[in-house]
Amino acid sequence: MAIRFAQRMDVVKASTIREILKLAASPDIISFGGGMPAPELFPIQEMKEVSLKVLDEDGQKALQYAPTDGFLPLREKIVKRLNRVGIKGISAGNILLTSGSQQGLDFSGKIFLDPGDAVVLEKPSYLGAINAFKAYECKFIDIPMDDEGMIMEELEAVLKNNENVKFIYVIPDFQNPTGKTWSVERRKQLVHMACKYDTIIVEDNPYYELRYEGEIPPAIKAFDTEGRVVFLGTFSKTLSPGLRMGWICASEEILNKYNLIKQGSDLQVNSMTQREINTYLEMYNLDERIEMLKGVYKKRRDLMVEEMKKNFPPEVKIYVPQGGLFVWLEFPENVNTLDLFKKALEKNVAFVPGDPFYPNEGGQNTCRLSFSSMTEDKIVEGIGRLAAAIKEM
Amino acid sequence: MAIRFAQRMDVVKASTIREILKLAASPDIISFGGGMPAPELFPIQEMKEVSLKVLDEDGQKALQYAPTDGFLPLREKIVKRLNRVGIKGISAGNILLTSGSQQGLDFSGKIFLDPGDAVVLEKPSYLGAINAFKAYECKFIDIPMDDEGMIMEELEAVLKNNENVKFIYVIPDFQNPTGKTWSVERRKQLVHMACKYDTIIVEDNPYYELRYEGEIPPAIKAFDTEGRVVFLGTFSKTLSPGLRMGWICASEEILNKYNLIKQGSDLQVNSMTQREINTYLEMYNLDERIEMLKGVYKKRRDLMVEEMKKNFPPEVKIYVPQGGLFVWLEFPENVNTLDLFKKALEKNVAFVPGDPFYPNEGGQNTCRLSFSSMTEDKIVEGIGRLAAAIKEM
Repeated sequence: MAIRFAQRMDVVKASTIREILKLAASPDIISFGGGMPAPELFPIQEMKEVSLKVLDEDGQKALQYAPTDGFLPLREKIVKRLNRVGIKGISAGNILLTSGSQQGLDFSGKIFLDPGDAVVLEKPSYLGAINAFKAYECKFIDIPMDDEGMIMEELEAVLKNNENVKFIYVIPDFQNPTGKTWSVERRKQLVHMACKYDTIIVEDNPYYELRYEGEIPPAIKAFDTEGRVVFLGTFSKTLSPGLRMGWICASEEILNKYNLIKQGSDLQVNSMTQREINTYLEMYNLDERIEMLKGVYKKRRDLMVEEMKKNFPPEVKIYVPQGGLFVWLEFPENVNTLDLFKKALEKNVAFVPGDPFYPNEGGQNTCRLSFSSMTEDKIVEGIGRLAAAIKEM
Repeated sequence: MAIRFAQRMDVVKASTIREILKLAASPDIISFGGGMPAPELFPIQEMKEVSLKVLDEDGQKALQYAPTDGFLPLREKIVKRLNRVGIKGISAGNILLTSGSQQGLDFSGKIFLDPGDAVVLEKPSYLGAINAFKAYECKFIDIPMDDEGMIMEELEAVLKNNENVKFIYVIPDFQNPTGKTWSVERRKQLVHMACKYDTIIVEDNPYYELRYEGEIPPAIKAFDTEGRVVFLGTFSKTLSPGLRMGWICASEEILNKYNLIKQGSDLQVNSMTQREINTYLEMYNLDERIEMLKGVYKKRRDLMVEEMKKNFPPEVKIYVPQGGLFVWLEFPENVNTLDLFKKALEKNVAFVPGDPFYPNEGGQNTCRLSFSSMTEDKIVEGIGRLAAAIKEM
């Protein structure tokens, strides 16, 4: 019996990261693989208080079906947080709650992409987004980056010659996987390009609040005068990824489509979790929590980079991010990081080879390491093991 | 600026039920619209105990990312519950947790349907499923039913002549919207047909545990010898719909595809909720809870039917279900229930007109009423108001 699946299933593949996480599940392994928040910093006591309060005060509503767009007081609080990165003139009517920002990525594909359409994205880009879009049978056009973001001349050449570019997908702050951040000027230019060539921008911004130096720049959506930018946000990195709570901010016309898709996909996000997060934001100070996280993560980043500089050969180029969760490495062209990964696993240390972040080709000599979820002694030990693996190559 | 959405967005429409629920949100309105569980019966106290226990004992894991397939102990418990309806030879490896069974419907479309493919389904069928499948640009072939399920001769005629039928979608117990239940014999025949014509069955079974008389029959999947049946289940009707927890049970080959799609769609369901429901099942007796629910719902069903018989003209055909949440009405051909709906709203009572449950045509003289979420005095009052509206037509 040969089951006849849809054509899209020919291209949908398992996430390399999730597969690697499985390999790296042994407690002996020091894993710099997944972009996981530090579990010892989760607000467990606060969540207990919050759960009790929600069930005591609104238990019936917290356990019942609820409207698709999400709990109004939470959406209003999200609006205020977005105002702080320059996204003005929006209301709760511009916000839809989603099951993490991953669901916002999937919905973006579902709403905009017909088979054969193109997505323009950074080279390299986030693997989870590539996989989500791929299910809609699109092609990818990846644009090289410098230290300020996509190179605009390259982008313009692509937009000029491709009528079926449905959107430009970017992660402007501490990009996954490279850790790079777009300059303000380049953000403005990107919006200008989208207007000039009549396309949409999907701005995926899960990390901007985790900035370890300098000022948070305005979001790309802050420069959106024509309602062309869809902003995806999340509580995964600031509060908890297990709660699966993200949001989409878009113009009413566009958000209405996301809302229709949310209805058909899973009706709504968890009613109890919506209220728990809302109550958390009322009872506690998320900004103070973020300050605490930044203190810990900054130390881990600094230590990881320091250990790399001390132990790696000088040919390994280290990209130091201003925030977020990832350090990006570039090896000489002849090094294949998939081989290095296998050798590293033998030494009980894991990372993510760069290749899957390139939807077309390239990146065999790159890799991504997350510093967020490993304690300082494990960072020292793990980078030491990795240095030994590199030496053996 | 004209935004270029994907072609599927031309056919994706708002759910009539969700739109009606918005109209019926006023507290003066007695709504028999949505299939909502009775909120006064939710296990609020138990959920408080369960949340505390999960956060105390496994807080770090409950708030962290987790594997896509779901928490193993919960999947093992689901296996045991499915064994009781005759689904044998399965393990936790055959279960994937989803965001309600609505997500299982969406994924079924995503995995099996290319544009132009056909879904065979009951006439009428569940609106939420029709909307979910529609996003994959399929066509619908609806098969008439008698009191035992789909009429097999009609089904066979369709399967014989349509090579692009990717799956047959059925709700065998207390079907939404008609409340009808498939006989055991017809279940066997359906599996036989799927084998003979090499297709898949998607068995959507959210209500079977809410049976008010007689024995629970084996699931259709109980007769599945070739791994052709995908079973969708949920805790929405027995525990809480706000928690958004459903599951898919399928052969490993098929489930692997659902798993890939789950990864790209939203990574996983809420880690905390998975553990809360697992702990609920360990600390409390879900079967006792279901007995309690059945007692209340049976009374409400009986009362609603009694009031209908007393107050409605004899031309209105009443379908009395053996379980579930819905009573189905058939009016004489010349009655349009959308007109009746408008008149009923003026009298502050709401229901769902039947028309949207027919993906092709028909049903203008039918409607669905839910008896689960309204107290007995409201049922009496609401059916009285509806009888008055009918009289005026």
